[in-house]
Amino acid sequence: MELIPRLDEDSKDPLYIQLYRYFKNEIEHSVLEKSTRLPSIRYLAENLKVSKTTVQMAYQQLLAEGYIESRARSGYFVAEFEGDYIDYNVNRDVNFSAGYSPKQKPTPILYDFFMSDIDTAQFPLDAWQKCERKLLNHENREILKYGHFQGEPRLRAVLSDYLHHSRGVQCIPEQIVIAAGTQSILDLLYHLIEWKNHRLAMEDPGYQGVRRSLQGWSIHLVPIPVEEDGLSIDELSKSQADAVYITPSHQYPLGMVMPIAKRMKLLSWAYAHNSWIIEDDYDGEFRYRGKPIPSLQGIDEHNRVIYIGTFSKSLMPAIRVSYMVLPPALLEAYQSFEWRQTASRLHQKTLALFIESGQWDRHIRKMRTLYKKKQILLLDTIKLVMGSHVRVSGQDAGLHIVIHVKSRYPSETLIKQAKKAGIHVYEPAWSIENIKSTTLLLGFGGLSPEEIKQGIKLLHKTWLPYYS
Amino acid sequence: MELIPRLDEDSKDPLYIQLYRYFKNEIEHSVLEKSTRLPSIRYLAENLKVSKTTVQMAYQQLLAEGYIESRARSGYFVAEFEGDYIDYNVNRDVNFSAGYSPKQKPTPILYDFFMSDIDTAQFPLDAWQKCERKLLNHENREILKYGHFQGEPRLRAVLSDYLHHSRGVQCIPEQIVIAAGTQSILDLLYHLIEWKNHRLAMEDPGYQGVRRSLQGWSIHLVPIPVEEDGLSIDELSKSQADAVYITPSHQYPLGMVMPIAKRMKLLSWAYAHNSWIIEDDYDGEFRYRGKPIPSLQGIDEHNRVIYIGTFSKSLMPAIRVSYMVLPPALLEAYQSFEWRQTASRLHQKTLALFIESGQWDRHIRKMRTLYKKKQILLLDTIKLVMGSHVRVSGQDAGLHIVIHVKSRYPSETLIKQAKKAGIHVYEPAWSIENIKSTTLLLGFGGLSPEEIKQGIKLLHKTWLPYYS
Repeated sequence: MELIPRLDEDSKDPLYIQLYRYFKNEIEHSVLEKSTRLPSIRYLAENLKVSKTTVQMAYQQLLAEGYIESRARSGYFVAEFEGDYIDYNVNRDVNFSAGYSPKQKPTPILYDFFMSDIDTAQFPLDAWQKCERKLLNHENREILKYGHFQGEPRLRAVLSDYLHHSRGVQCIPEQIVIAAGTQSILDLLYHLIEWKNHRLAMEDPGYQGVRRSLQGWSIHLVPIPVEEDGLSIDELSKSQADAVYITPSHQYPLGMVMPIAKRMKLLSWAYAHNSWIIEDDYDGEFRYRGKPIPSLQGIDEHNRVIYIGTFSKSLMPAIRVSYMVLPPALLEAYQSFEWRQTASRLHQKTLALFIESGQWDRHIRKMRTLYKKKQILLLDTIKLVMGSHVRVSGQDAGLHIVIHVKSRYPSETLIKQAKKAGIHVYEPAWSIENIKSTTLLLGFGGLSPEEIKQGIKLLHKTWLPYYS
Repeated sequence: MELIPRLDEDSKDPLYIQLYRYFKNEIEHSVLEKSTRLPSIRYLAENLKVSKTTVQMAYQQLLAEGYIESRARSGYFVAEFEGDYIDYNVNRDVNFSAGYSPKQKPTPILYDFFMSDIDTAQFPLDAWQKCERKLLNHENREILKYGHFQGEPRLRAVLSDYLHHSRGVQCIPEQIVIAAGTQSILDLLYHLIEWKNHRLAMEDPGYQGVRRSLQGWSIHLVPIPVEEDGLSIDELSKSQADAVYITPSHQYPLGMVMPIAKRMKLLSWAYAHNSWIIEDDYDGEFRYRGKPIPSLQGIDEHNRVIYIGTFSKSLMPAIRVSYMVLPPALLEAYQSFEWRQTASRLHQKTLALFIESGQWDRHIRKMRTLYKKKQILLLDTIKLVMGSHVRVSGQDAGLHIVIHVKSRYPSETLIKQAKKAGIHVYEPAWSIENIKSTTLLLGFGGLSPEEIKQGIKLLHKTWLPYYS
């Protein structure tokens, strides 16, 4: 293979951009054919008399746009332009619109049963914008400056009311800390908790984001198996954990609601070991069946529970606002740190107005009804179409359900086959060692009723050869 | 002292709220007089037969509202209602408007020479809102969902153009990472850098926020003295630091611009030791004098510089959007982490439109002229009013200057006297061991010309007895 890029040292464009353009052009015009191996970075740098970084940056750009791909221990190859080179779990909006022109898109997604999708069509955009306009006016320019480090006082005041009447949380506004998303909240918590044994227990399977936040921290993660009614208290008792991260209102990902008796046991564990309970109530607003069970924080008598909530499910993820309720001991530690607030002050103030105006309650009530309808439709369709091939669980709350497919193939095969047909279904991430059957997650928040019906039909057709 | 609060277990209000109200009332009606010592938490809890937490929460609320104060090793006292019980450095917007009624406000601030204040009167609110309206419409509801984990691609594309033409930064959009404020950026960096010696060098005096971010991390901070032309390369060479955090465009807080020769030396140090340079260009947009000096990132030939910027100075702090440009090696590490984006997607998209429309450039040009005028007025007024009592430095760039007051009193005295007169001036925080004279910081961004003139006159009058 002969590569003769014309690199112009005097051009206003950096060398790596010139090199990138050269390859892009050669690939687009099939001068470089699919699966062709590219020269190594070192070889090309020496050959072209440029720095290795120049080549590295050009390759990186080509990689990012999907022109080439990297294969472990073999180097860079012209990409096949097939399949799914973007990880949709972490990166759901790759759209290099300005200055980028990817040659080919991945297989189009027809039906995406993503767990974190919300129904944006119902979002009260006009009411939201009305609050924004009320806020951002020429007389009120002070709000463009830094806000309160702990979060806007007015938002914390209305939140404490809301959490009290809707989730049974006992707190004053002073205890609430706002931050830019739940991972930011967890980051703060790692600093606040005094780790004696350096052990954090969490549900297995559980929420990926916790594990991600842990990277780079010197804390050991102790997986605790999840039983029919939530995490195993017996296993937790053996864990020597300083804290446990749990999702009692709707276990993520398996979906069970922790009964009151187990909640009391969990609290007793915390009291006995002087440990913390991190209660993530990420979608507790959407409960469809069963008696309301108060949040752990609300029945905690010794201030061992840290309650976490978010607006990502109940309103929208785009504004990046989450919150936690700190027990007095941790609040003192937090206030000594003098961290800057991370969530937008404008969004916080808009939210406060939005909640005060009653729109917030109205929106949640409306969405609960809507999501319940969608969920019933999903359950009915699965029953009708897939019948006994599939068992469902985790349907008491939330924006996703769990399906157990009767198949002798692993879940990866089912996911891959679905993807080929343009359907995205998901694995109950981080650890599945204690899950016996072929368990998958189906989110329904972002799909229309018609999409739910058609999606399940196509999924069934695709999986027919894989049922046992 | 006899305390007989009527606590009603059956009330819908929690006990601590009842207890808090009792004390509030007693203090407001002077039943409990100023400086009265309150009973200890343990004593009161036993006496009232409530939990210690109940008392603790009540006291905390009273503390937060300024009714009582805590004195080290002596307990809680009814507050004096004088002076400044709010730390304005970290907490500039305490306004518990909903449900709170602080008895008395601190001494009113007449002139606040705060370094991070911007001129909000000039912010192009209409243009900003126009971009927002264009963005948030009924057809475009997808933007309410999660965005790209690294930051909105379109914003990164326009930012890379802007950084190239205005700051000489060499990068492609792929290298830019967005996050919610500079402390969030620093948090990410701590995870990305491989700390071999666990040592981060930084300018002394330097930016407080770095030290704050470091709390809870197992990294040793090595202070490097700042010379006339920026940090001492000799001292840095002895530091064994894995990375150095610096502000070469306008040293924070002393204000010098690092000359090109020293920049080259700094880069050589990084190449020789395989160390990283964290270049924080926090207000590099506002340079008033001297030749433009390219950013370190722009003249770095071996990818050792991490460039950091923010919209807090050049636009507004309230949206909480900062960014960094990662060298390829760290970018790869970043992309492997799968952290969620922390900055608001709506703000990012609005910003992209705002920059594309040309408003961004226009705003910065306008503000540069305006801030320059304010700075000249401040310098002229100081010269005219304070004469030889004060020497000024750090006036080449930025939104604050440094004054060296000829006084035999420490800076705390000057700050305290100013505060009594309603004027806030600031200390060059975290360490001042190598600063000989009485050095103070005066920000001018947020003050009107008239306020600058009157503020300096009043400051002079206040300080007259303290000049040497």
